[in-house]
Amino acid sequence: MFGINGNFLKLANNYLFATVNNKANEYAKANPDKKIIRLGIGDVTLPLPSAVVDAMVKASLEMGKAETFRGYPPYQGYDFLLEAIVENDYKARGIDISVDEVFVSDGAKSDCSNILDLFSPDNRIAVQDPVYPVYVDTNVIDGRAGRARPDGSYNKVIYMPCDESNGFMPEIPDRQPDIIYLNFPNNPTGATADYNTLKKWVDYALKVGAIILYDGAYEAFITEEDKPRSIYEIPDAKYCAIEIRSFSKTAGFTGVRCGYSVVPKELKSSGASLNELWYRRQSTKFNGVSYVVQRAAEAVYSPEGKRQIRENINYYLENAKIIKQGLEEIGLKAYGGVNSPYIWVKTPDKFGSWEFFDYLLRKIQIVGTPGEGFGPSGKGFLRLTAFNSRENILEAVERFKSLKK
Amino acid sequence: MFGINGNFLKLANNYLFATVNNKANEYAKANPDKKIIRLGIGDVTLPLPSAVVDAMVKASLEMGKAETFRGYPPYQGYDFLLEAIVENDYKARGIDISVDEVFVSDGAKSDCSNILDLFSPDNRIAVQDPVYPVYVDTNVIDGRAGRARPDGSYNKVIYMPCDESNGFMPEIPDRQPDIIYLNFPNNPTGATADYNTLKKWVDYALKVGAIILYDGAYEAFITEEDKPRSIYEIPDAKYCAIEIRSFSKTAGFTGVRCGYSVVPKELKSSGASLNELWYRRQSTKFNGVSYVVQRAAEAVYSPEGKRQIRENINYYLENAKIIKQGLEEIGLKAYGGVNSPYIWVKTPDKFGSWEFFDYLLRKIQIVGTPGEGFGPSGKGFLRLTAFNSRENILEAVERFKSLKK
Repeated sequence: MFGINGNFLKLANNYLFATVNNKANEYAKANPDKKIIRLGIGDVTLPLPSAVVDAMVKASLEMGKAETFRGYPPYQGYDFLLEAIVENDYKARGIDISVDEVFVSDGAKSDCSNILDLFSPDNRIAVQDPVYPVYVDTNVIDGRAGRARPDGSYNKVIYMPCDESNGFMPEIPDRQPDIIYLNFPNNPTGATADYNTLKKWVDYALKVGAIILYDGAYEAFITEEDKPRSIYEIPDAKYCAIEIRSFSKTAGFTGVRCGYSVVPKELKSSGASLNELWYRRQSTKFNGVSYVVQRAAEAVYSPEGKRQIRENINYYLENAKIIKQGLEEIGLKAYGGVNSPYIWVKTPDKFGSWEFFDYLLRKIQIVGTPGEGFGPSGKGFLRLTAFNSRENILEAVERFKSLKK
Repeated sequence: MFGINGNFLKLANNYLFATVNNKANEYAKANPDKKIIRLGIGDVTLPLPSAVVDAMVKASLEMGKAETFRGYPPYQGYDFLLEAIVENDYKARGIDISVDEVFVSDGAKSDCSNILDLFSPDNRIAVQDPVYPVYVDTNVIDGRAGRARPDGSYNKVIYMPCDESNGFMPEIPDRQPDIIYLNFPNNPTGATADYNTLKKWVDYALKVGAIILYDGAYEAFITEEDKPRSIYEIPDAKYCAIEIRSFSKTAGFTGVRCGYSVVPKELKSSGASLNELWYRRQSTKFNGVSYVVQRAAEAVYSPEGKRQIRENINYYLENAKIIKQGLEEIGLKAYGGVNSPYIWVKTPDKFGSWEFFDYLLRKIQIVGTPGEGFGPSGKGFLRLTAFNSRENILEAVERFKSLKK
């Protein structure tokens, strides 16, 4: 008789953003006259840049003609896209990554999850706390997380608290991890690591033989020149780190679906090459990314594409600044928002995360994401995103100010 | 120190189609004057139908406008596509499947692999032999296959021989499986199950508490009216079967990437709903399918789309007929090709599968796929595909005939 993977039953919570969405939708149904402003889920709102649309239209038409039709894509991605990635995201910053170390996928969420296929089920993971819930939930499903505690944390996961006391930067944990998730600019806190912080982690990983899964999905939002854009800016990171990137936030691709992972050839475990294992995993379980989508991603690196996505990112960053200032003006403490589309708001004394979430929804119809949903150290915080129209952002700030009156 | 998933080291062979491709490419490099006809990999060759291209262009343009832009897609797929699938692939055949039982994905290969996340690592799998290599290789990676024997088969997998003696139909195995893969029309043999055969399997699965993973990727090629198109045509199959479908061969989507799985709500294991588990799996590890791709798939069900894909399928089926007749004329035994784009050729007495592959490549520059690569019972066979231009198919037949001269 077939049986299920019992790890599913260990999942403590519903997927956070589904819960947030359901609560907002219920409220909307019960209060059809109220206009809700959604600053909860980190989904982009600006349309695709015209350079990207043009590329998709062109690629679609190519697929309709015998001479230019393309069947199965290469497992790792088309050379035109791999080369654009290597050239622009790495070589231009003096980083030596080769085309066969890059693997294009349908998004960073898929890569974050699927990469776990490569590792021993006994490996111990360490995550920043608060954390993007996918890191922990995928490890629950794969059996590395152990069992849930009453607060929703898991007994085998090493949580590295990131709070006001340490400037939202994780510290080397007491227990030694095998797999270390690092995510900068961070979702949800917006904190961004400097060179020395990343170097500390690379040195530690090399010393203890851990691997770093470096999630750089928000890299394009870095505005401070001294902050590293890639983990590979740190010497020898190629011996201990996989980097995962996404076009979702960089270029508004949440509905297009494209990302990539870098698995350096230097990465080995008892002689086995992780680059080769990942190629084997992808060629066995995956059939590559849509041609039209890969052409769309390539267009992000054209001169016109670069200019257009920069404009969009600046728009969101300006939104972030407006929210942050508005919150500070009414005496709330707010972090992030400088190299990140996320603002990490400290809830007022009397509120827990979910209470503050409910209060804002009921009182001023603003949807945030309760910090607690990102992990134990998210307690007492709420995440707001800058992904919305300028008009809605200004309106949201007015509504926050009305709370003070 | 991190460690790898040791199951990767148990993989006996390189992915079959990669090996076939490499051999053909090496030959091409060494013999640049020879024109190779590739009938090895099952990749479509006709361009996308214009109804599909039009839908992709329209969707791309929508993504460039603020009013029609779409961000993250629903995890399960857009309603417009789910409804088209339910209406055309199920309701039209009198099968009761509801929209929330269908899950759209980036392809059947991903679904075949990812669905395994739901099952206990102790479950024992049974596969038709010969078999699409992905079923076995993904179970090797996930730890269900055991260790490789010298012939490339795995000691924990139940192989169900499909050969001339049983009309390429698997028989109920002696050892009891938990997960049964069935694939009709079959890749590679082209054999197609009738109602009674499928009923035998459904009854057996219900009796022993096994689950059937029914791969219907080639369903659109069924020409014989009495053959079931879906496993759900069999009473109570919703209690024991997941069906996986693909637009790759149906509509030429190998480079577009779209498929779907049906996970009925009746499917339970010790009280847990597999429909809910799969939703949880997909929402945790996956972020849905590109909007443009889902509109492309929707167009397959438009009146124009239906007519156009029917034309394309008939073209390939005619190719299959021509190859089969050509082979028979020179005295070779050939199976399949009626409800399938695959022709399963018995190699002449003196040849093994790989020898015949090499012989055809060297002698008449035709690339097939050695039957042995699909499993032990594929020994002594070679798979040819009908996915090529009519011109090349006719030329291939001429070349085969030249062998007799």
